Amino acid sequence: MEHLISVLVENRFGVLAHIAGLFSGRGFNIDSLAVGETEDPTVSRMTIVVKGEDTVVEQILKQLNRQVDVISVADLTDKPYIERELLLVKVATTSKNRSEVLEIADIFRTKIVDVQKDSLTIEAVGGGGKLAALLDLLKSFGIKELARTGRIGLARK
Amino acid sequence: MEHLISVLVENRFGVLAHIAGLFSGRGFNIDSLAVGETEDPTVSRMTIVVKGEDTVVEQILKQLNRQVDVISVADLTDKPYIERELLLVKVATTSKNRSEVLEIADIFRTKIVDVQKDSLTIEAVGGGGKLAALLDLLKSFGIKELARTGRIGLARK
Repeated sequence: MEHLISVLVENRFGVLAHIAGLFSGRGFNIDSLAVGETEDPTVSRMTIVVKGEDTVVEQILKQLNRQVDVISVADLTDKPYIERELLLVKVATTSKNRSEVLEIADIFRTKIVDVQKDSLTIEAVGGGGKLAALLDLLKSFGIKELARTGRIGLARK
Repeated sequence: MEHLISVLVENRFGVLAHIAGLFSGRGFNIDSLAVGETEDPTVSRMTIVVKGEDTVVEQILKQLNRQVDVISVADLTDKPYIERELLLVKVATTSKNRSEVLEIADIFRTKIVDVQKDSLTIEAVGGGGKLAALLDLLKSFGIKELARTGRIGLARK
């Protein structure tokens, strides 16, 4: 099962590599990882997506909780939560198909953030399903480059 | 100086911890890190923000280029690029001040993604400056929780 794990860590040297190492030491591949500042500059939040047996993920959560640099650990998958990811994608366009790409961008309520003679760059936010559907449609025009942030989440309550 | 480094890596077990380790091994703290899928499921893109002397960052880029799991490395800071970050923030609200928070959310062109009796959750996308200004305004209401993805970027050309 897929787990979305939110970890508050001390924003200290080497903590990131250490936490990522805990997962790979257990044979887990991290599907996505987002690390950003919080309201407190000494604290960062890591949001980690991993797939694995529930019992093994539980072991990792316990191990995370024991680390001195870890302030708190939550498995968001357990309760209602909001999940979003940001995507920047540069799509190949010509003068002929540009308006078609713009239409798709509009339907998905995305934003155009750059235009070049041969490309459009689109900014999109969504849950996994929306971004996958958007990319699937854009693929036929040719994707020149893309960057995704990995997912972040907050519990609803 | 701050550098926004974009690294394409093989989506293999342990690569993430290895790359993060390269930075911490050199005494660099990673300010933000975003790792997401690309159009090719075997390849991930890591976007790393670090502050440091240009010459030392250059050394790290060379070292990254030598890793077998690294496909390509680009320092986006060298050329025109688009940079964005996603923020989810849960703001404390009361029936009295809710409309004021909604006004701020509207001015910053954000989206309300959840409402509870005592909170609003806002989704915002922007460059560093916009998100900092938004958070600064929201702080006075009380920030209950927030998650940021870290920055991602694409070169304009």
